[in-house]
Amino acid sequence: MIKVVAKNFVKEGQTELFLERINDLIVETLKEEGCMSYELFQDVKDPTIFTMIEEWESTFHLTNHMNSPHFKQVVPTLGELTSKEGEINVYTPVK
Amino acid sequence: MIKVVAKNFVKEGQTELFLERINDLIVETLKEEGCMSYELFQDVKDPTIFTMIEEWESTFHLTNHMNSPHFKQVVPTLGELTSKEGEINVYTPVK
Repeated sequence: MIKVVAKNFVKEGQTELFLERINDLIVETLKEEGCMSYELFQDVKDPTIFTMIEEWESTFHLTNHMNSPHFKQVVPTLGELTSKEGEINVYTPVK
Repeated sequence: MIKVVAKNFVKEGQTELFLERINDLIVETLKEEGCMSYELFQDVKDPTIFTMIEEWESTFHLTNHMNSPHFKQVVPTLGELTSKEGEINVYTPVK
């Protein structure tokens, strides 16, 4: 299993548009093979931080996701809505 | 539901001791009321990054956890094993 934590720093006033665009990504991603979970969270202290926490069966499935039409269509449009580069960590469980 | 992502930057050579100490915390924490999941992950690119991804039924349960004997006993001992301050984000799901 692969876990991804993708943190986005959304500009003040761009939250609604960000949520609209990322929702399109969520709907399509949840249909993908190997997608175990793909959920968006908001930081309780800093409401401009939105983090996607994802679970994938394998790196193969995650790579497919990042090459999917909906990923390539939506993700590049999110940059203009953010105040700085996001932080992405890809993890494996510690046994 | 409350999600916590707690990222630790472990010093080179201190991984084993870090895992030993944090394992004691995991064992006790999983017994706590309201603990939905409490799992440790390692970053695939930077093996010194260890992140606990946690799910709690409520802020009340998370606060209890942070006041528990095992949390107070273990967490202060982790600092000496890390190269810099950890990053903790507490989240709620975006509906």
